[in-house]
Amino acid sequence: MKLNTLAATLIAVAGISLSSAALAQQDQFRALYAPIAPPKAVDLGKVELGKKLYFDPRLSKSGFISCNSCHNLSRGGSDNIPTSIGDKWQKGPINSPTVLNSSLNLAQFWDGRAADLKAQAGGPIANPGEMAFSHTLAIDMLASIPAYVREFKMVFGKDKIDIDQVTDAIAEFEKTLVTPNSRFDQWMLGKSEALTKDELAGYKLFNESGCVACHNGPNLGGNSFQKMGVVEAYKGNDGVAGRAAVTGKDADRFNFKVPTLRNVEMTYPYFHDGAANTLTEAVDTMGRLQLGKKFTQAENQQIVAFLKTLTGDQPMFTIPILPPSADSTPRPTPFK
Amino acid sequence: MKLNTLAATLIAVAGISLSSAALAQQDQFRALYAPIAPPKAVDLGKVELGKKLYFDPRLSKSGFISCNSCHNLSRGGSDNIPTSIGDKWQKGPINSPTVLNSSLNLAQFWDGRAADLKAQAGGPIANPGEMAFSHTLAIDMLASIPAYVREFKMVFGKDKIDIDQVTDAIAEFEKTLVTPNSRFDQWMLGKSEALTKDELAGYKLFNESGCVACHNGPNLGGNSFQKMGVVEAYKGNDGVAGRAAVTGKDADRFNFKVPTLRNVEMTYPYFHDGAANTLTEAVDTMGRLQLGKKFTQAENQQIVAFLKTLTGDQPMFTIPILPPSADSTPRPTPFK
Repeated sequence: MKLNTLAATLIAVAGISLSSAALAQQDQFRALYAPIAPPKAVDLGKVELGKKLYFDPRLSKSGFISCNSCHNLSRGGSDNIPTSIGDKWQKGPINSPTVLNSSLNLAQFWDGRAADLKAQAGGPIANPGEMAFSHTLAIDMLASIPAYVREFKMVFGKDKIDIDQVTDAIAEFEKTLVTPNSRFDQWMLGKSEALTKDELAGYKLFNESGCVACHNGPNLGGNSFQKMGVVEAYKGNDGVAGRAAVTGKDADRFNFKVPTLRNVEMTYPYFHDGAANTLTEAVDTMGRLQLGKKFTQAENQQIVAFLKTLTGDQPMFTIPILPPSADSTPRPTPFK
Repeated sequence: MKLNTLAATLIAVAGISLSSAALAQQDQFRALYAPIAPPKAVDLGKVELGKKLYFDPRLSKSGFISCNSCHNLSRGGSDNIPTSIGDKWQKGPINSPTVLNSSLNLAQFWDGRAADLKAQAGGPIANPGEMAFSHTLAIDMLASIPAYVREFKMVFGKDKIDIDQVTDAIAEFEKTLVTPNSRFDQWMLGKSEALTKDELAGYKLFNESGCVACHNGPNLGGNSFQKMGVVEAYKGNDGVAGRAAVTGKDADRFNFKVPTLRNVEMTYPYFHDGAANTLTEAVDTMGRLQLGKKFTQAENQQIVAFLKTLTGDQPMFTIPILPPSADSTPRPTPFK
C-alpha cells in the first residue's frame, strides 16, 4: 500500500535525521509531516448507508449501543472515558481510539489485529463485551427492514445483504471522517502566521526532543508499532500483551500502534489504558518513559500548545434518520 | 395557555360529535386536527447551545448517557426499547416518550408531572436511575469549560451558568423538534391525492370508532390525561400510579397523558410499559380496552395504514461538535 510505503520512508528519514546535524533545520522536519487531504474516490451511496449503520444501535444486542456510542463524532471520534462501556455496562479492557483519520493508520485496533477499517468494523458488533450481537443476527435484523433492503440493493446491486456489505459501507463512511484544515496544516500549506511563537517553539521541541520519531506522517502517528515504556517501564502494562497478541512474538510485548495526535485535544484521556487525563500529563509521561527526558513546565506548555494546533475541521453532516423496524424485525433484548 | 384552551375545545367538540348525527360528516372531524406548524419566535442562540447540551453525555455521571441516548433523533425521538437503560444499565420504570412535537403537549412525562419542556429537562439529569448526576455537578462541569462559559454568556448575558439556563436552552432546542409535512398534513392542507383509499378508510374508522376522542389536536394526542383500560382493565398497570402520583387523587390511578400519534411508526414499542411491539397490536388493544371494539383484520390494517401517514419531516441538522473538557473539568465516573 502506498500509505505504508510513505510511512516507512518517513520513519527511515526520522531515524537518520535524529542522528545527524541536519536535524536542526526546520525544513528537514517539515518533510516528515503532511497536511490531511480530503478523501478521494469516495462511493457516496456506501457513505450514506454506512452513516446510517454507524449510528444504528440495532447492530447491538441491547438496541442501545452503536458505533457512535464509543467513537462519538460530536467528541473527536472517541468516548472520553478511560475504557469504554459495553453491553450490560461491562468495562472495556482498553481505551477507545478515535475513528477520525483512522483510514490513515497502517492497521486498526491498538494491537493492529485488523488490517483495515473494513476488517475492524465487524469486531465490536460480535464482541460479547461490546455490542454483544452476532453477524448473523445483525443481517437478520437488516434484512427484515424494507428500507434497508432497498438501500443495500441500490448500493451493492445484490439481492441479499451480507456482513461484507455492512462492513464495507461502514468503512466507506469512516473514510470520510478526516479532519483537514487544522492550524498546523494551514501553516504547512503556507499560512506562516497560523501558528503563534509558543506553538512554533513547541513544534521545535517536538521535533528536536524526538517525539517526531514515532509521531510523524500525515496522522502524526498511526504508522508504526512501538513499545510503551522504552527508557522506563510503564506501570499500566500489567496483564497487557499489546502487539504480541497478534504476532506471538515476545519482542512485541507492550508494543502498541502509535496513536495519531490529530485532534488530540478532543480525544482525552490518553494511552491504551486511558490513564492520562490531560495533555500535560501525557507529554510528561511520554518524555520520561520514551525519551528519558524530563520536560520543564515551560517546555511542556509549549509542546501542549503545539499539539492543540492539530485540531482540524470536524466532520460536518446531518444526523442520519434510521428506517423503523418492521413488525417482523427481531426486537433487541437489553435486559436478558 | 392558548394550546390548552384549544385542546379543551377540541375535546368538548369531540364529545358532542360522537353523540350526534353530524359525526359522519368528514368536515366535522377535520376540525379536530391541525397540521404541524414550524415553530415561531425561536431564539437561535439558545437552540444551538441547547443542541450541544442535548447531545452532551457529560451531563451524566458516567459521561456516557445524553438526552439523545433515550430520545434519539435518528429514531423518531425515542429509544425503541420497552423501558430505557439508565446509569449502570438500570432498567427504567416506563417507556421513553418521543421528544418530537413534545412542545405541543399539555404537560411532560407520562404522568404530566412537569408543566413544560424546561421543567422536564432537569429531571433525567438528576434522576439516580437515569443520568444519575446532579444539577450542581452539571453546572460545575459546564463552568469548567471555557467554550461553554463563553457561549452561555453570549446567549444569556450573565457571568454565571445556572441550571435554569441549561434547561431553558435544551427546551428551546426541543421546541424546534417538530415534524411538519406528513402526508396527513399535506392532505389537510389541500393535496387530496396525498392519502390512498385505504388510508382514508383508516382515517374514517379512526374517527367513527372514537379513537379521535382522545387522539385529537395538532399532535393527535398529548392534550389530555385518560385512563389506560376504560372498558377492560390493562394488565400492564400493576404497580403503576399514573397521574395519581401527581394529583394524589384515586380517580387518577392508571391515568396517563395520551401519547401523540405523530411519527408513531417510528416510536415503537407502544404504551407506558412498551408492551406492544407493533401498531397492529396497539390498535387491537386500544380498540378492545378503550372502546370495547374488536377491529377486524381489514379494519386494523386500514387504521394502521392511516397512522403511518402521520410520519412527518424529521428534524434535519448537522451533528453538534462539543467543546473538549479542560484540564480542570471533573472526569466522569462510569464504574464507581
